[in-house]
Amino acid sequence: MELARIGEIPGDGVNRPCLSPGDRTARRMLIAWANEIGAEISIDVAANLFVRRAGTDPDAAPVLTGSHMDSQPEGGRFDGIYGVIAGLEALAALHDAGIVTRRAIEVVAWTNEEGGRYAPGCMGSMSWSGYAPPTTWDDVRDADGIRYADALAEHLRLEADLPRRPLGGVPHAYLEAHIEQGPLLEAAGLDIGVVTGIQGSRWFSVTLSGASAHAGTAPVGMRRDAVQDMLRAVSALNELMHDPADILRFTVARIDVTPNTSNSVAGRVRFTIDCRHPDGAVLRAKGDAIRATVEAAVKTCDVLVEEHFDAAPVAFHPLVVETVAAAALADGASAMGLPSGAFHDAQFVVPLAPTGMVFVPSRDGISHNPAEYSSPEQLAAGTRVLVRSLVALAG
Amino acid sequence: MELARIGEIPGDGVNRPCLSPGDRTARRMLIAWANEIGAEISIDVAANLFVRRAGTDPDAAPVLTGSHMDSQPEGGRFDGIYGVIAGLEALAALHDAGIVTRRAIEVVAWTNEEGGRYAPGCMGSMSWSGYAPPTTWDDVRDADGIRYADALAEHLRLEADLPRRPLGGVPHAYLEAHIEQGPLLEAAGLDIGVVTGIQGSRWFSVTLSGASAHAGTAPVGMRRDAVQDMLRAVSALNELMHDPADILRFTVARIDVTPNTSNSVAGRVRFTIDCRHPDGAVLRAKGDAIRATVEAAVKTCDVLVEEHFDAAPVAFHPLVVETVAAAALADGASAMGLPSGAFHDAQFVVPLAPTGMVFVPSRDGISHNPAEYSSPEQLAAGTRVLVRSLVALAG
Repeated sequence: MELARIGEIPGDGVNRPCLSPGDRTARRMLIAWANEIGAEISIDVAANLFVRRAGTDPDAAPVLTGSHMDSQPEGGRFDGIYGVIAGLEALAALHDAGIVTRRAIEVVAWTNEEGGRYAPGCMGSMSWSGYAPPTTWDDVRDADGIRYADALAEHLRLEADLPRRPLGGVPHAYLEAHIEQGPLLEAAGLDIGVVTGIQGSRWFSVTLSGASAHAGTAPVGMRRDAVQDMLRAVSALNELMHDPADILRFTVARIDVTPNTSNSVAGRVRFTIDCRHPDGAVLRAKGDAIRATVEAAVKTCDVLVEEHFDAAPVAFHPLVVETVAAAALADGASAMGLPSGAFHDAQFVVPLAPTGMVFVPSRDGISHNPAEYSSPEQLAAGTRVLVRSLVALAG
Repeated sequence: MELARIGEIPGDGVNRPCLSPGDRTARRMLIAWANEIGAEISIDVAANLFVRRAGTDPDAAPVLTGSHMDSQPEGGRFDGIYGVIAGLEALAALHDAGIVTRRAIEVVAWTNEEGGRYAPGCMGSMSWSGYAPPTTWDDVRDADGIRYADALAEHLRLEADLPRRPLGGVPHAYLEAHIEQGPLLEAAGLDIGVVTGIQGSRWFSVTLSGASAHAGTAPVGMRRDAVQDMLRAVSALNELMHDPADILRFTVARIDVTPNTSNSVAGRVRFTIDCRHPDGAVLRAKGDAIRATVEAAVKTCDVLVEEHFDAAPVAFHPLVVETVAAAALADGASAMGLPSGAFHDAQFVVPLAPTGMVFVPSRDGISHNPAEYSSPEQLAAGTRVLVRSLVALAG
């Protein structure tokens, strides 16, 4: 709740963009709490922030946990930050109980998971895992025109007092706690989700270039109106993406019109496509059909389709999945296995180390919205399962 | 061409928002040129700027000419500014020729004709004419959140050295020179458009309020997606506004999505409607049907339809129309009568004084676009007709 005051917006929401002053304030609060239990702080060139509690065996690979601290522009108080705070709480509980594990336990706050200020999301975990070089997104700009590389350099300059660590490393295991962001646990009346994997995501942008013209004089039949072609394109994509089973997630959620003034016909429209499915083959087929679908639908504009993000569905590792299930059982929590509808930084750790996640219920399944809510009891139950799992994994 | 460098954008375009530093720079250049011929400067509370050349009869109502100096965000070099410069050139030509008219001639630069930074357009001429109080739009905000009242107060503070004049007054006549912004004169191969009137315009905004949600977890069938409802609304409006004769001008050109991030379902969309027709009855019927059409089309969102601008079609006064036609004939220019597809400040002078306009051709009919072009010869021909007309009207 203290962290939720940093970037608070009406309706109990949070707007804390990555690499913003609010992001730094939240990180400094985390560091202050970590210092109280003598944990070590470090940061890498992607601005991923690590809090380490040493184990008895300095040669053993650490167990990694954590999530992210940035939010959506109209986000809630729990998405991401819960997993970081739960990880820190785990370290504090071990500290208070005088328990020292064999392996070190590290809590990470990944940079820019949301992709709200800079798309795509998960830049920090993608950089750390070697999925893409950290310079990949240098020229991505936020709504104010600030380049990602410049925002990152500014952040690292302001955090220059923190010890640096290299990107990567191979942890013994990675376990991320998170709110479900969906309705399944609440509907089932259960405490804990033992996450079995993450559906795949593909992100695209479509740019339609027509010609701006005077809204009063240009005959409608002679226009190259990018708004009207967007209508045609999205209508055709709705057909392509229609799924009677309602498993496929197709979203057009960002639209940028140029010049975006009421009495000049739109000369250019750029819109985004977010497409997700747990079946990699379906996701491949639907995503690959986007370009031809848009090109067939538009009437007057030039079309540019770009893909910005392509994450295949992943299955989590039995070591972690079974550890979480056993921890829930031992703690007396009710639990079920389920896949994640949202993508998470965990997705990018999968190729490097045994990975898993633990979910707690989201009220009404609402997330990316100020109304996002999980009760203190639900959050505490998830944290207890996290601590038990970390201790089991860290020995 | 000197003024076109203030706010120049690629492709020979201009972006000079009303009440911006560029607008002030352009006005100061105009004032400097006016000072060279000893004209008097004044400004009113709506920031309309006047350049007056006295006549021999101080009691006779002046003849008013002019247009506006602000541009569309991706506008051209001639829209508006031509009418101001042509008016100043008229004064300069009379000065150089030693001709003194009976009535004073005043050149006006109206504030915010375009409505690009602050909607609707014509705030300056509407305030001057008493069509609406100048405080009507105080709380309208630009894209940076700056209130109109604050931008206006800042402008008047920076121009505090200019003598103030009251709003309004009844000129003997008003004549505005402008580029056609349409294809008719070029298609007919003529020099001059003797403008007979202006089609009517109605501006609306539609706000659709749904619920933001996570693009990965929220099932498509359970969403209240404002982008999808916008698609339904605009498709239905396209049906309503379909005109086989292509006389009705229906434009959706501004779309603002909230939160406008690719992986959060759009919780709110606001879009604009610009609707124009020369027949007042048609315009009334189509505009009045917008609310019911949108409400019937949307599936999940709450609907708010607001009307921001309602200008009935106007016919210009025979005194001015016939004066312009006679001036074209006397100057050896080829001319035709035609209505204006765009609205202009002249629309709001009609109730106060005999009003008219003179058009020059626009290449390919293009306007509100950097490619907007009229040749020096065409602009000079229009200015000669303007001078002859002003002299005739001012005696």
